[in-house]
Amino acid sequence: MPNIEEIAKICKVSKTTVSRVLNNHPYVSEEKRRKISSVIKELDYTPNSLARNLRTNKTYTLAISVPSIDHSFFGQLIKGISNEAFVQGYKVLICQTFYDKQNELKVMNLLRNNEIDGVILGTLENEWTVIEPHLKYGPILLCNEYHEKASLPIICYDEFEAGYKAVRHLIEKGHKKIGFCYDTSYSQAQRQRKEGFLKALAESNLQTRNEWTFDRAFNIEDGFRIFNEINKLNEKPTALFTGNDQVAAGIIKKAIVNGYEIPEDLAVIGYDNQLLCQVTTPTITTIGIPIIELGIQSVLKIIQYIRGNEGVKREIIRLSTKLIVREST
Amino acid sequence: MPNIEEIAKICKVSKTTVSRVLNNHPYVSEEKRRKISSVIKELDYTPNSLARNLRTNKTYTLAISVPSIDHSFFGQLIKGISNEAFVQGYKVLICQTFYDKQNELKVMNLLRNNEIDGVILGTLENEWTVIEPHLKYGPILLCNEYHEKASLPIICYDEFEAGYKAVRHLIEKGHKKIGFCYDTSYSQAQRQRKEGFLKALAESNLQTRNEWTFDRAFNIEDGFRIFNEINKLNEKPTALFTGNDQVAAGIIKKAIVNGYEIPEDLAVIGYDNQLLCQVTTPTITTIGIPIIELGIQSVLKIIQYIRGNEGVKREIIRLSTKLIVREST
Repeated sequence: MPNIEEIAKICKVSKTTVSRVLNNHPYVSEEKRRKISSVIKELDYTPNSLARNLRTNKTYTLAISVPSIDHSFFGQLIKGISNEAFVQGYKVLICQTFYDKQNELKVMNLLRNNEIDGVILGTLENEWTVIEPHLKYGPILLCNEYHEKASLPIICYDEFEAGYKAVRHLIEKGHKKIGFCYDTSYSQAQRQRKEGFLKALAESNLQTRNEWTFDRAFNIEDGFRIFNEINKLNEKPTALFTGNDQVAAGIIKKAIVNGYEIPEDLAVIGYDNQLLCQVTTPTITTIGIPIIELGIQSVLKIIQYIRGNEGVKREIIRLSTKLIVREST
Repeated sequence: MPNIEEIAKICKVSKTTVSRVLNNHPYVSEEKRRKISSVIKELDYTPNSLARNLRTNKTYTLAISVPSIDHSFFGQLIKGISNEAFVQGYKVLICQTFYDKQNELKVMNLLRNNEIDGVILGTLENEWTVIEPHLKYGPILLCNEYHEKASLPIICYDEFEAGYKAVRHLIEKGHKKIGFCYDTSYSQAQRQRKEGFLKALAESNLQTRNEWTFDRAFNIEDGFRIFNEINKLNEKPTALFTGNDQVAAGIIKKAIVNGYEIPEDLAVIGYDNQLLCQVTTPTITTIGIPIIELGIQSVLKIIQYIRGNEGVKREIIRLSTKLIVREST
């Protein structure tokens, strides 16, 4: 197997120049680049990335941690992240927490053991004090999640505004009994969403009830379950901000099967603006969010820290959302 | 930073024994394991995985190549693959081809450049003759796809049988004009599906038409497009085997909006049995497939070849499917 030294000798250039051509680095004349490339091809030389990684002490790999990949929001987010990482010369390792603190710590161990260069957290399962000590092993970034104190970059949606405008819309449609669904109630992003929801209610002198708030609302099956819970209540909400299109679709379907008129008996708002919203009957009112943009910005930010070799600092970027009105309200 | 040698010295054991404890290897007495673990913890020792990888010439990373992660079938497949890989001590790199031959070759380059130990191909974009030379760099496995000649392990569904029973069902419901959708018509798995479809038609002396076959049927938007194409035909099919639940949902929704009765004017069968089939109105008849099982078997098979250090050989495992009848037929 030929090595870089031999290629350099044959081409009468330095090893650095060969390495630059291999890594598509600029500052190599077109003539030299062509000569070196042809020798590389002729000798069927393949760089040993394991050796390169040990030399640079970099893995050129990012981890993205999400609750579960099997959800259209996270599918799209990962698509955005993977594509941008590829453009930047990075691979992406996808880790699923399934809402388990231990699984999140396994991602932290990857950073500690030098298996990845940085972590994008698309969810936060542990207390910040548990995560913070890992910052000394490499940059960590919060994406799609929020923390009021954490000393790291945060790229998220304006959740307060989203919750506020969803409920304003329901109030304008005449609703007074409005419920709320959390994905996970320990998520600070979702608590901000709830604060927006409560602010809009308070402005109209309305109140919600504890039994109208539902936790663990993630997928279609959760929507089925939540409808069953609503259906058993003596005093039922007439509208719901579900925080998730799949949950909205599940609730709407079960409600229709049980003889409800939508939106007359129960108005429902989703979140994410998945294509799913357009194939249900009725179609689903939702909050539109720039998912791919969230992924791109997260990758650019974490690579900036990896390349800079400096510790991360707290900075918050909030992307705005928009209400998309359809038949379910 | 302490190293394995120092830990071995302090514990009065060999470096091999320390290494065994670090890698959760058996054959270490409970007493020694406890002693070594406490020293590792005390010294805050972290193994350098980059050095280990160079030593073993392994990356402990698999790549899975799919057309796009942003699709519920591939989301679930990757979930099955990631979980099993994790159990087996492997990381998973997810690569998206977006149906582009060049993107598939980039995955092959990862194998060639020793960035991964093996590849699971969940789609096949290039001719087999283009892929085959890469087998010398590590094992490759076909999953969810089929090839009539390729000399590698193939784990797939019994697509012929699926196509056959879907069409038998439509014929039993009285349909004589039945259409077909490909995800990609160059997929041999999907050609087998089409053969089953044609066999069932032939048995009932029925024929299909070229204009009732649609290509690039992947997501809800493709379903919208395909309905528009059907709606323009003078002689329309009365039933469709779409090969994909999302496509089925898109077609059904557009058909309803355009005044069609489903299934009276157009019966539709999906594929995958996603939860989506249960939230549309009408609900969607589909082919149920064991997706997680497909992922697990693929991981176990490729790791067997990686550990065995031997070249892959052709072997075919076909998982069976089942027809799930709902309102859309």
